[in-house]
Parts: sequence; structure tokens; C-alpha cells
Amino acid sequence: MGASGAVGQEFLRVLDEQNFPVDNLLLFGSKRSAGTSYTFRGQSYTVKELTANPNDFKGVDFAFVSAGASVSREYADIITAGGAIMIDNSSAFRMDADVPLVVPEVNGDDALTAPRGIIANPNCTTIQMVVALKPINDLSPISRVHVATYQAASGAGAAAMQELEQQHRSIADGETPEVNKFAWQLAYNLIPHIDVFTDNGYTKEEMKMHLETKKIMHAPELEVSATCVRVPVMRAHSEAIWVETRDAITVEQAREAFAKADGVVLLDNPAEKVYPMPLDAAGLDPVFVGRVRADLANPRGLSFWAVSDQIKKGAALNAVQIALYIMSRWRML
Amino acid sequence: MGASGAVGQEFLRVLDEQNFPVDNLLLFGSKRSAGTSYTFRGQSYTVKELTANPNDFKGVDFAFVSAGASVSREYADIITAGGAIMIDNSSAFRMDADVPLVVPEVNGDDALTAPRGIIANPNCTTIQMVVALKPINDLSPISRVHVATYQAASGAGAAAMQELEQQHRSIADGETPEVNKFAWQLAYNLIPHIDVFTDNGYTKEEMKMHLETKKIMHAPELEVSATCVRVPVMRAHSEAIWVETRDAITVEQAREAFAKADGVVLLDNPAEKVYPMPLDAAGLDPVFVGRVRADLANPRGLSFWAVSDQIKKGAALNAVQIALYIMSRWRML
Repeated sequence: MGASGAVGQEFLRVLDEQNFPVDNLLLFGSKRSAGTSYTFRGQSYTVKELTANPNDFKGVDFAFVSAGASVSREYADIITAGGAIMIDNSSAFRMDADVPLVVPEVNGDDALTAPRGIIANPNCTTIQMVVALKPINDLSPISRVHVATYQAASGAGAAAMQELEQQHRSIADGETPEVNKFAWQLAYNLIPHIDVFTDNGYTKEEMKMHLETKKIMHAPELEVSATCVRVPVMRAHSEAIWVETRDAITVEQAREAFAKADGVVLLDNPAEKVYPMPLDAAGLDPVFVGRVRADLANPRGLSFWAVSDQIKKGAALNAVQIALYIMSRWRML
Repeated sequence: MGASGAVGQEFLRVLDEQNFPVDNLLLFGSKRSAGTSYTFRGQSYTVKELTANPNDFKGVDFAFVSAGASVSREYADIITAGGAIMIDNSSAFRMDADVPLVVPEVNGDDALTAPRGIIANPNCTTIQMVVALKPINDLSPISRVHVATYQAASGAGAAAMQELEQQHRSIADGETPEVNKFAWQLAYNLIPHIDVFTDNGYTKEEMKMHLETKKIMHAPELEVSATCVRVPVMRAHSEAIWVETRDAITVEQAREAFAKADGVVLLDNPAEKVYPMPLDAAGLDPVFVGRVRADLANPRGLSFWAVSDQIKKGAALNAVQIALYIMSRWRML
């Protein structure tokens, strides 16, 4: 659902890459994208307009939904009525007590109990952060996180990526760049404003990192303060992260933990100019971690830099991994 | 000195904008830029090659030097021999005990005692940060700072800015962008690597923020942990900053302090999409502060976002302000 969007298109690639067992594939979209055809494993599928017909979802095992929170809210009952598990990429149900919020490397078992048939995929910035926090948290519980994000245009969708490219083309041609998808011009600029502002001065994007991290990590006392910034990068998010742990952890311990953690690739050899960068991470699966060092402002602190493709692990890949996790536990694989 | 560089050119503009009293102007540069002419207040001046001739600096009151650390080290004695005050933009002397490191809004009086005739201009990232820290520190002493920077191409000089522009032009034309001035491609990318790496895993750029902040603020116990990142922006640096103070400070107190602080302009009205952005700050004098809010991960913490033109307040303007500060205290103005 949302088949024509940046994440929807990635779903098709990821399902194939992950060897997801597909007997039948249904593509849904808005009226506008209905009728468009996409190829999956050599076969052509046409996008159907999403309507309130529960028969459309008969026999569906997993519904990967990425069409915005209001669409998810409107169609959740229809999608799940016939027993389908809805894996929802929107923010609609993430904080609901009866909807698990899952990153398989961190809390995969939470996906095994979904009373409403809905499992929420966390926000992209949260997903890549918790994958990196997990190995540290296993060494000693994390009490605080400070994080500054550097978020790619992809987080605002395919049209936003095109707008960034077009802005750069206009500037190169000496023209005034058009601004539609972002609050301000993004080319050669930074916008410290993603999603809407809340009463405490944080944006919703920043509060997602605060609230979702607690829920995924089962750590109500873990406090996150985030500053989320849109940067003129195409499709991988980067995060400068500081953590405080209950007991002091050495840089060596942290590096070892990252090196063997699920979903993490450690790229940390400054002498050889090896550290994660969004241009290298685009299109790839892992969360890349580097720049691991002691926090000079906190004896129980560590600092590191995490980069991951926002459309892959930050969206489509994580959702598909949730389904794969459930299938493996249910012996469906 | 360094008249043809990005900072050197800005010196000429800033001296004029600040109504700096100039009886005689001498421009020095490398062999390569010698012979080039620049206009200042309607008169043309030709760049002279810098040599070891102390007569060149006879009668000079202030020497604004921006030609890299090794040139500063080589020529400091020659420049200051005749009584000139050398205001040095390089890192050569910043941490020397007998060289004051000055940001006029923070520690202007330190400039009045310069036993070697050298005053150091801090690193650009430090300058804009301490201007923003000062009003908070005046409310209650700051004990820790966590800062993630978003640094423009200008920090690497005029040729680096051209390279970023050229990279974008090449990409728009479907060509492979050339990489010379940065460690990696900067267009559509982020490089978490500015200046060289030190043994503790921090870069020199990050350690400058740590060490210079202590010296400028006379606060050896103030600890700074920085992550410095190059972003594809042309000429203003941005910083996501978290501070911990001895006593808790409210957001309202912080906003009031920023609003009346020297050198700071508060841009903090999220409801109207008002917050600092590098594109708006380019070419302007102040340090723009916004996104002021409580640190959700620290009851004695605050978080904010500071943006300032790296070539102006981060380099040329601060140096000229040091000279103006000295002249005003010496009743030369």
C-alpha cells in the first residue's frame, strides 16, 4: 500500500533482495497512482486504487503500508479484518499500547504479540539509532542520549528528492530555485525543522526519537534529546550521538560490541579516512557506525556517528525484516 | 596578509563596513597572488609578496594575518618587530600561554595584555559557539557542552567553495564530480572529518572547540565534546548545542539572555517558521540563535541551534572587532 511512493518502490526491491516468499502480490495506491504497473520477479503488477472493500485483503498474510498516517488510520480495520498482519510505516499507531513498535535487532519478540493485527514500523531516525544503541545498552544500560541528525531529502518522499535535484540544477543555471516540498530552500542550506512543532519547542520528529526509543528499548527512564535537521543529501540519514551509560564503557568495549552487533557495520579507521558517509550508505542495508570515542564532557559517556539508508533500514527493510522475524518464529520459513 | 584568500577578501569588506580608521593599507600574499590589485574605499592596492624584510612592517599598527599556521609561525617575529599588533587567524599561537585568544563579546579585556604582540583569533566554530554560550554562562556557569557542527565549504577556503559548486554542476550534467579540496565528494554528502585526527579519536577541529572554549571563557573545568561535520553548504556554519549549567535555567530566562546579548540575534519563533538557517546568515555579522528549549535528557540542560557566517564572525569580523576593542580601550577611537 503506497506502492508508487519512494518507500513503496523500495518494498518491491527489498522483498526480492530478502528472498521473501511471495505467492501473490497486490499493489495498492491512491487514485492518482492506480493503473501504474511495476515489475516484481519478472511479472508485471498493476496498482489498484485503495477502497473500503474488505474483500481486497482476503487471504493477505502481510500488508506493508506506507501511505501516511491518515490513510493508515482510515484503512487499518479493513486491512486487518481478514487476518492480515498490517506492518505500518506511518506514525498512526506507534505509541498505542496495543500496537508493538519493532526493530527486529532490538525487540523482535514484541512483534509476536499484536492484538490488533497491527505492528508499527518506527520513525527512520529512531530505527537507525536504536540499532546502534542496542549493543551499548547490552554492556550497560543507557540513561541519556543526545543526538543531532543530518536527514536526507528522501525522508520527505520521492518528489522532495527531485525538488532538491531541481533546485541544484536551477542554481547552476543562475535561476531562482523553486520551493514546494520543504519549508525553505534546501539546496546549499540546512532546515532545523522536520515535521510540525510541539508545545515544548521540539518538533514531532524530535519527540518521536524521544518517545519511540523508550518504547522499543523497554526503557521508560532512558531520556533522549534530539535536534533534527534536514540537509541537502539525497537518501541516507546521519546522526551524531552521545550516550551516557550506568557504568563507564571503554572505547574498545564499544567498538567490539558494534563490530559483532546485528545490523551494524563498524567503519572506524580514521587514519585511513574510514568513517560512515551518507553517499556510501545509500542503497545499502546496514547501520554504519564510526567515529567511536570517549565523551570528553562525560566520564560515563561515549560519542559516535551512525549513518543508514533512510528508505532501506529506516523504512522498507525494517518492515520486511519484521515480517521475516514473525515467519521464522512461527516456523513459516 | 593572505589578502587574496576568502578571509583576506572579507577583511577588506569588514574594515570598510566597520568604519575602521585606515591611514595606510598594505596587502601581502604569496608569490602566486603578488601583483594582484584590490580596491579599498575607492583606491587600488597591489598585493606584495611576503618576504622576511622587517622594514615592510614599519609603522604598521595592526596586522591581520590569515595565511595558515606555518606562515604565521615563520613571520610572527618579523611582523611584530616594529611594534605592530598581529591578529592571527591561524591556529599557530592559540593555545600559547602568552598569547591571548579573544572573542570581544566574551573576553575582550584579554586583548589588552599581549606580551608578544600577538593576539589569536579562535577557530570559527569556537567563536560562534562562545558568543552563544556567554549569556547562558552569565546566568549560571556552564559545566558541559555537547555540540554537533554542520560546517560550510567556506571553512576550507575559496577554492573549496568553487569545488562544491563545480561538483554540483558536474552531477547535474551527468558527469563524475572532481574531488581535490575535501577528503571525499561533498556534494550530496557529509564528511565527519575536518582537520586531522588526533590520538583520542577526535579531530583537531573538534579538539579546538574543546580547548579554545576553556581558554576564552576562563573555565578550565568546562568540558566540550564536539562532532564536526562538513556539509554541502556554502558559507555559514551551524551548530546543535546542548549545555549543562550549575543551576537549572528556564527556557524563558535563556531566551531573554540571548535577546539582549552582544553579538547575538535571537530568531526563535517556530510557529512562524523562524529559526536560523545558513542560507540566511551568509554575509551577515551576528551569531543567530534559535530552537531554544529544555534538554529532555538533563534537568539542568538547555538545547539550542546557532548559525553564523564562518568568514565573517568566524574569521575576519572577529579579528577586526579585536582591533576595534583595543583601540577603544586605548582611546585611539
